[in-house]
This record gives sequence, structure tokens and C-alpha cells, in this order.
Amino acid sequence: MVKVGIIGVGTVGTSVVQILKDNSDIISARAGKEIVVTKGTVRNLNKKRDIDISLSDNLNDVLEDESIDIVVELMGGVDEPYKVVKKALENGKSVVTANKALLAYHRYELQNIAGEIAFGFEASVAGGIPIIKALREGLSANHIEKISGIMNGTCNFILTKMSEEGADFAETLKEAQELGYAEADPTFDVGGFDAAHKLLILASIAYGIDAKPEDILIEGIENISSVDIDFAKEFGYVIKLLTIAKKVGNEVELRTHPTLINKNEMIAKVDGVMNGVSVIGDKLGESMYYGAGAGGDATASAVISDIIDIVRSGKSSPMLGFKRPLEGEQFSLAKKENITSGYYIRMSVEDKAGVLAKVATLLGENSISVKTMLQKPLNDGGANLLFSTHTAKEADIQSALSKIKELNFIKDKIVMIRVEE
Amino acid sequence: MVKVGIIGVGTVGTSVVQILKDNSDIISARAGKEIVVTKGTVRNLNKKRDIDISLSDNLNDVLEDESIDIVVELMGGVDEPYKVVKKALENGKSVVTANKALLAYHRYELQNIAGEIAFGFEASVAGGIPIIKALREGLSANHIEKISGIMNGTCNFILTKMSEEGADFAETLKEAQELGYAEADPTFDVGGFDAAHKLLILASIAYGIDAKPEDILIEGIENISSVDIDFAKEFGYVIKLLTIAKKVGNEVELRTHPTLINKNEMIAKVDGVMNGVSVIGDKLGESMYYGAGAGGDATASAVISDIIDIVRSGKSSPMLGFKRPLEGEQFSLAKKENITSGYYIRMSVEDKAGVLAKVATLLGENSISVKTMLQKPLNDGGANLLFSTHTAKEADIQSALSKIKELNFIKDKIVMIRVEE
Repeated sequence: MVKVGIIGVGTVGTSVVQILKDNSDIISARAGKEIVVTKGTVRNLNKKRDIDISLSDNLNDVLEDESIDIVVELMGGVDEPYKVVKKALENGKSVVTANKALLAYHRYELQNIAGEIAFGFEASVAGGIPIIKALREGLSANHIEKISGIMNGTCNFILTKMSEEGADFAETLKEAQELGYAEADPTFDVGGFDAAHKLLILASIAYGIDAKPEDILIEGIENISSVDIDFAKEFGYVIKLLTIAKKVGNEVELRTHPTLINKNEMIAKVDGVMNGVSVIGDKLGESMYYGAGAGGDATASAVISDIIDIVRSGKSSPMLGFKRPLEGEQFSLAKKENITSGYYIRMSVEDKAGVLAKVATLLGENSISVKTMLQKPLNDGGANLLFSTHTAKEADIQSALSKIKELNFIKDKIVMIRVEE
Repeated sequence: MVKVGIIGVGTVGTSVVQILKDNSDIISARAGKEIVVTKGTVRNLNKKRDIDISLSDNLNDVLEDESIDIVVELMGGVDEPYKVVKKALENGKSVVTANKALLAYHRYELQNIAGEIAFGFEASVAGGIPIIKALREGLSANHIEKISGIMNGTCNFILTKMSEEGADFAETLKEAQELGYAEADPTFDVGGFDAAHKLLILASIAYGIDAKPEDILIEGIENISSVDIDFAKEFGYVIKLLTIAKKVGNEVELRTHPTLINKNEMIAKVDGVMNGVSVIGDKLGESMYYGAGAGGDATASAVISDIIDIVRSGKSSPMLGFKRPLEGEQFSLAKKENITSGYYIRMSVEDKAGVLAKVATLLGENSISVKTMLQKPLNDGGANLLFSTHTAKEADIQSALSKIKELNFIKDKIVMIRVEE
């Protein structure tokens, strides 16, 4: 019998206990042994919980219990889980975690500490979708060209709703909060940080890139309006919070931002709270993985698949795939300002002579080449100027926009959304 | 160094050799050892080939070579590959195959012969998509409720083209043949047999069902016309060759047939030659796996992922997941005639009094309950009668249709397509 201790028994932990019981037949058969949660820790012992395992509010009751083989960390946060996981590994226990924030900051230290000890984190990216297994094992013959993910269900729910109902961001966020799809403080999700954490984990597996959230380009969906969603639709695009890791020569671009995607791309069809991750391998081409990115049972499904793998194999795959860098391989993180993309730009302007010329001049002077341009009258007598651009550098578009916004005929905030072809 | 021998070096085999060379850095790193193809067999040694491994036309040069660790079987066919794989396993060599027909008939015998020897067949289902790994390991905590797959690129290409261009089956098949997406004799693909073979493999992993192709319901796409595709579209459906394994109580339905699917389902969005497999787990809910289901490099990507797994783990997962049946589990194959589904029915009739009443009476007498009905005039003065039905039994719909087709006002073949909600 394999004994599991859970640090931080909340929604996911309760599901882990329940599924191990509900599906013990299939789980024991697959693992070759019975797997039982014997202990869990919680912050508040007085809160009533619907599970029948021994609970404690002292972490050491799990970490120092010699009978426990596998520690599952489900606390949330970064610093405390780091100490907990470190201690568990140092005590020789295998560890499984669903904590993306922890890994966004400490995956390399933890990999070093883990060494030969098994460390699973399938549940940390895209919930129940076995994307880490696919990337690390299923596509093991491939160099990865690009990963594009819709990995935050809150953002995808909001953007899908806005697109379907023409609603604005604020009211849709409120609806998401009422449905339990968004937190009271939604910044972590709608600001793009949650998706960026997951990106960093996948980028380590695919490229061995050691970066922190603050090193990469992160933009949230707070400024997306139904106006832009409608314009995008008119031209055959949808707007998604897309999370991208892309190899460009010896550099890897890592970025999370609202993105116009051609509606015929498979990833563009991932709607609502669902997640999807598209991976382009140099030999396989595109494959995509779709499913529930959150929720107690879905996340627990991934946690338990890690536990079963650990029990069955009795040893660890290298946590981040294998030792990097490979011989002759030297990936480095592309600087934010060097990232290239196409851009959608919308600006509300006064409708008077010379406006278009001035904007076009500033774009040209900053090496931004216009692909399509459209002017649409606004009700107040002004006009919306819409541009799509050819591929250009982040630094150039930022420079152009900072100059354009100073022009006196610009009436409102300029909207810039990246376009991924 | 791990030595691999390939039996049947064709398109896929050539890709395996090439990728092991091209991506040796990443493959060695992941496997922990260098992997090299040292020998291959071909039928005709005189045919010029663009690879630099030692070739022979004698299978035993690979099967009895003691230096070879892993045999990759890529011959095609059933009987000869069965002998080859059996002999390789008996000689203690690990085996990797992409041969779905072999497994459709002999997976249980081969599992028994393999015992503790590693036997990989990821490439046999949906080409490069790691669906077997997902089902066996990624979803290992789940009882599988249902698998729905678009697993034949030829059929999906033809149906997608017919839908996009309003073309008919015969001309689209010809186009597919010209593009190399369909064989000169297309029966194996368009008749649904290829997809059915893959289904049997997945059904063994999910349910431990031991069935042969002739035991299950298989219908091809030869009778799908653009008329029906258009009607389907009008009501929000697409028509796909869908391959279904579905748990109903203690029985499992296994079937491959053209199917009306709601266009908003993720699986309905899998177009062209691409494959997609949707899996519903009792805990995870739906997840879907999408990618290239055929092609040399994509298939080789899966073959090599199996080789890497074998080299890395040094031991085998149970070939079909684990020993079945589990305690208390007794899945049996649902009889074809007991399979239930909704149905779309179209019949061309003479436009005269009493026609609808007679048809409706025969449907009712055979326990077929009509959900929607539509009559559309035909150019020749007759009419198209369109029905969609509530869920009904296969035996009942067949009985009803066999009686209706005898009615003297029926002008053409009656079309029946199953509907999956």
C-alpha cells in the first residue's frame, strides 16, 4: 500500500481523496498497488469538511511522518509551499504539486533538490489535460517549434461571453465572479499572470529556459472591448488570451497577451472556461490538447495520474524533461523589445484633414509597415482608424504608439492587440 | 547504445531513421542513451532508397540478430506481421509497431506473448497524436465513459471537402486520390475499417473489450451525399465518420459510422486530413487530442516516442493498460442490434396523399419516435421527407426502414445517418 499525505486539503485535495476511493479499482490496477491518503493538513481544523482522513494543522505531521511515501502539495502561494516541498524532498518523499506559482519561481531549485526523487506537476498546467506528459513523453522525438495555449479559463470565459453577447468587460467579469469562474480580486487571472506561470513551466520542458514571470511579456485582457472583438470578427479573427513560447533562431519568445487569431485555427475554437494547448513539433507538426483547465475533480485527475506514474515506475523522469542545455544548444530568452508580431491598432480621432497622414508618417518612421487600413465614422463625428500591420518589433510599435498618442487629434486610449498568424 | 531493427522500411521506416538522426540530440537526452537503427528489411532490395542503413530482404537478419534490442514492425498486413512480432517477442526483443490491423486481430495474443517484454503501439492509433499515452497514463485516474474519434484522415478530408464545396462523394474521392490522401482501392479507409481497427485498440485500453472488426458495427461514407451534408448544416450539424466506444451499464457499444454531430462540439471542428479523439473520463470530463493522423514523420514521431519510453523505463507498462477484467467489472460488447442512437432519415417520395401517414405509421409500429419532420419539394415533382428521431434501437430502425423501402411511393434509396448528441 502506498501512503499519501496532502498538504492543504481544499477543493482539489478533497477530490483527490474522493477519487482515490471512488475509482480505487482502476487506480490500483494501473498503479499495481493500493493508494491511500492517510493524512492531510489544513489551516483551520474547525471548518467542517466532508472527508474521513486524519487532519492536522501542523505541516510536520505529514512532512515528518515516516510512513508517508508521497506528499501532495496543494496549499497555493509561493514561499511557504517552497519550504514544504523542499523539506518533503529532503526527507526523501516523492512530491506531487498542482502549484504553478511555486514552479514559476522555483522549478529549477526544486529540480536540483529532487534529483532522483520523483516530482510530478502535471496538474500545474491546464488542469486535467495531460499536456506535460504529451510534451515530455508523447512528443519526445520532436524539437518544439512553438507552443500556443489558452490556459486561463477565467479569461477565456470572459472573452467568449463578450464575443457571443457583445457585452463589455466589466459586466462579463462580474458575471464570471457570480458563477465562481473569477476570484473577488481577479487580477491574477485577468492580468495574464496565471497563464504566464503555466507558460514558464512548459517553456522549461520544451526549451530549458530559466525565466521568471517578471522577465517576460505579460498583458491582461482588462482593456479588451466588444468594439475590438467585433472588428476582429469582421475580419475573420477571434480575440483570445494566448500564451506563446516560440523558438526564433537561438532565442525563445515567451509572452502572454490578448491576441487576434484566425478563426479557422483549431486553438481559436477553444471557448468558454475550457483550455487548449497547441504544440508544433518539428516532426509531428501541430497537435492540440483540449479539456478542463480547472476544477476540483479535473485537477485531481492530473494529480492522481502523477501519483500512479510514480508508484508504477518507482523512479522519476527528470522533472523538467532532461538536463539542459543539450550539446550545441543555447537557447536564451528573447528580450521583450525584440519580440516580433503583427499588430491590430485602433484609435479614435477627430475627423479632419491631415490626421491619417500624420499617423501613417509616425508608423513609417518607426519601421511599422501597414498591411490594411480602415476608417470608420464614429457617432460623435470623429472616426475610428483601424490598422493591421506586417510583422514588426515590439520596441518599434511601442515607440510609434507613444508618439501617436501625443497627437492632439487622438481622442481616446489607443488600442493595440497582437496578431498571431 | 540501443540498436533498433526495422521490419518493412517504407515511408514511415525511412522517417524513423531520419528523425533518429536529425533529432539525435534531444532523443538521446530524453532516452538517456543513443538510439540507432542498425538494420532494416525490405521486400525489394533493388528499389532505390534514400537511407544509409544496412538493408536485407530476409526478415531473420533482423529477428535473429542478437545485437538488436528493439524491433520496429512496419510491414502492414496481418498474418505475416503477426508471425514477425511473435518471433521478435519470443526472441526477447522489445517491439514497437504502427500496425493497427495486426492489433485489431491479435492484440490479446500478443499481450500474452509479450508478458514483461515492452510492446509499444502508440503510432497505431491517430498517427502522431499521443492518444494511447493519454488514455493509459494521463487519464489513469478515470473510468472512461466514452471515446469519440475522427481517426481516418481520408474520410475526414472527403467529408470536409464535400461540406465546403458542395461536391459529391465520387469526385471528392478522386481528388483525394490525386492528392495521395486516398489509396487506389479506397475501401479500407472509406468503408470505415481503418477507423474501426483503431477503435478496437482504444476499446481494449479503456474497457478491456476483446472484439474483432467483424463483431462491431461498421459503416463507411460511400453513401453520404452533399444533399445530406447540406440538410445537416441547415440544422446546425456536421457529418463526420465518427468512431465511438461508449459505456452503457455493463455493456460497451463499439461502432464506426457517418454521424451527425452538433457543430459546436469540439470534435465537430476537426477538419481536413486531421484526426481528433475526444475522451470523456468520469472525473476529468471531456478532453480532446488533435493532430496529424498519418504521414511518415508524424507516425515516426509516435514510433520513436515508444522507443524512448522503452529505453528510458527499461520495462513495459502492461500492453493494454492492465489486466482485465477488474474485480467486479464485467464489460461485454453490446450487440449491434441493441445499440441506441438518434437517427436522421431522408427519403425521396412521390408527392401524393397518404404517403406521410404510411411512413409515420411504420416508424411508430417499430418504436421509432419522430422528433422533427420536414417535407421539401423535389424538382421532379416528388418530395424529400426528412425525419430526425428520438433515441431508438438499431434493430428497430433497421426493421422500420426495411419495411418503408418496400412502399411503392419510395423513389430512391433511403438515407439513414446516426445522430450523436
